[in-house]
Amino acid sequence: MTRVAVTGIGMTPFGKSNDSLKALLLKASRQALIDAGRPKIDAIIVGNFMGGPLEQQEILGSILVSELGFGNIPSMKTEGACASGGIAFRQAYQLLKAEEYKTVLVVGGEKMTHIHTNHVITAINYAMDNSTMESKTGLTFPGYFGVVANRYMYQYGATKAHLAMVARKNRHYALHNPLSQFNTKITLEEIMNARMITDPLGLFDCSPITDGAAAVVIEGNTKNGVEVIASGQASGTPIMQEVNDLTRIPATYEAATQAYEQASIEPKDVDVVELHDCFSMTEIIAIEELGFFEKGTGFEAIEKQLTEHGGNIPVNTSGGLLSKGHPIGATGIAQIVQIISQLRGEACNQVERARIGLAQNLGGTGAYSLVHLFKKEGA
Amino acid sequence: MTRVAVTGIGMTPFGKSNDSLKALLLKASRQALIDAGRPKIDAIIVGNFMGGPLEQQEILGSILVSELGFGNIPSMKTEGACASGGIAFRQAYQLLKAEEYKTVLVVGGEKMTHIHTNHVITAINYAMDNSTMESKTGLTFPGYFGVVANRYMYQYGATKAHLAMVARKNRHYALHNPLSQFNTKITLEEIMNARMITDPLGLFDCSPITDGAAAVVIEGNTKNGVEVIASGQASGTPIMQEVNDLTRIPATYEAATQAYEQASIEPKDVDVVELHDCFSMTEIIAIEELGFFEKGTGFEAIEKQLTEHGGNIPVNTSGGLLSKGHPIGATGIAQIVQIISQLRGEACNQVERARIGLAQNLGGTGAYSLVHLFKKEGA
Repeated sequence: MTRVAVTGIGMTPFGKSNDSLKALLLKASRQALIDAGRPKIDAIIVGNFMGGPLEQQEILGSILVSELGFGNIPSMKTEGACASGGIAFRQAYQLLKAEEYKTVLVVGGEKMTHIHTNHVITAINYAMDNSTMESKTGLTFPGYFGVVANRYMYQYGATKAHLAMVARKNRHYALHNPLSQFNTKITLEEIMNARMITDPLGLFDCSPITDGAAAVVIEGNTKNGVEVIASGQASGTPIMQEVNDLTRIPATYEAATQAYEQASIEPKDVDVVELHDCFSMTEIIAIEELGFFEKGTGFEAIEKQLTEHGGNIPVNTSGGLLSKGHPIGATGIAQIVQIISQLRGEACNQVERARIGLAQNLGGTGAYSLVHLFKKEGA
Repeated sequence: MTRVAVTGIGMTPFGKSNDSLKALLLKASRQALIDAGRPKIDAIIVGNFMGGPLEQQEILGSILVSELGFGNIPSMKTEGACASGGIAFRQAYQLLKAEEYKTVLVVGGEKMTHIHTNHVITAINYAMDNSTMESKTGLTFPGYFGVVANRYMYQYGATKAHLAMVARKNRHYALHNPLSQFNTKITLEEIMNARMITDPLGLFDCSPITDGAAAVVIEGNTKNGVEVIASGQASGTPIMQEVNDLTRIPATYEAATQAYEQASIEPKDVDVVELHDCFSMTEIIAIEELGFFEKGTGFEAIEKQLTEHGGNIPVNTSGGLLSKGHPIGATGIAQIVQIISQLRGEACNQVERARIGLAQNLGGTGAYSLVHLFKKEGA
């Protein structure tokens, strides 16, 4: 089997930027290309969700090929809501494994802060099935995960403080990430008392609106870089009424199961994780679905600090979506950038002796989930 | 090498529909699935361009997985403007060739007629590079190809009548296609005298605004179906000022060159073609770039009826984008549906003894081009 590895990474600062989406994508791309040693690129895959409605810009693949001076190589954009970046990465990985290409640039980005928040919220809701009455009658993503949090708290005995502990942990990690959107310390009390968004989720339980881009160069048949050892992907219902158990995200469980099987490893073999904490509640569910903790016990693991340095498995050492920021199409790639940095031993909040890393990217309320596994040489 | 073949096809009527984008995609998908004998599907890839801005609906892949009852299989949407469908097909083909999946459903669709034309035109312009002044100062797709037509006429001596002959041919073919948007006969005179859109392109020189969807089932490692023998894809500049020669679309030439090389055939081996006639002018350029006629002679081939039954190579026997209709994300798949029908021997405007077929799908003004080749058993 062809060895496929990430040989270059790049990422813009996350937050509010004056750059256009195109400029953000180019900045991250150029960083990744330089980091990889400027290899010949055979294809570009762009992860993006709302370039059309929010910035009147599609055909991002072709634009990047032109601007980067890559001649006439093939390119495309992939979309799967907040999983658009992870999906882009998976396509590149599969095509490199198949030796369709030798080297692919994968870049994800989103430009969100330049227009009124109402427009952003409207566009984010395109990630629901709008043929149902759910979103028409007012359901939003914070609304959905607020319901999930209430159900989880009712069913397992978690409290709002557990949610706040997730937000505190990720903010703490973000303080050491120079590219993160938020870099001020917050206390548990401040998180608990913050403006309510949808009960029980307060302001700090929700990922922010962010501009940013992230890129990786992936190569096949190479001895360099950090190896990609598995790619799992699954779909789930995008309709709330069809969810059997609100405290679960089955697509994440399934994607993780596929990935562990492909790599012949178990959750306990993973040393460092970036996962999709679009809300504090979502992180608790994810650490359960990924197999790190038993169903209904994730909140206790958070309380015991088992997902921090010194615990079982450090999670979202980048600051996560909650505090690093969540430029939607960039997120799946930015997670991978952090995992590669960890396995290279040069990350913010470096995890000592990290050898196997996992990145999990969610789209919609559970419509898509992707799990990628990475391995440091000699691991 | 794994044999990859199209084993099922489906297509809704093209035109004005009361169905939602989701409903259109489901109808075409179900037809293709039934036509293929209801195989187990391993992944769904959706080609779509404007589902977000025009119908507030993304995550189409996941929605189809759920609605079709396919459990948690992976899915995604691909975007490359009007080439979104062709790009979706290419991903499936590459992944099947690599044996990543055994059977993939590829479906493309667009819903365009339900809102004011101005909104549609605005969204179509997302397929230009809007960081330049070109579209901001009023350039549209009819505008671009109007300039191209003027340049081509000046350079090679073609006339407006040659453009009209393309429109007449495709309308003539559409009369026999029960799924086409237009089914009234028009004369050359009517085409020549129609309302001007952008000089020299009149109403009938421009593809219409259309609702519709088309789907195919593709299988790897199968003895059934019509074999996919090549996939070529290339990018080109999306910026008018960077085009070296306005009478050329280099991405189409490059994609065709790749495809012919992969299949070890020459243009003369092709028996039937569907190509991207978003404007009458574009068809003349395409038959040159695809190698059927020398540069600057395509208009003469049209006049001599060489692209019709009895000529060198029948082109757009479905009616083409001009008269079958152009629901953007569906187009690349609908072209393949017609080619498969031709190679099965059951098409409207059947070409006798057709054994090798070609489908060419364009995105933007030349930002993306894809060429796929298909072969009937025994060819």
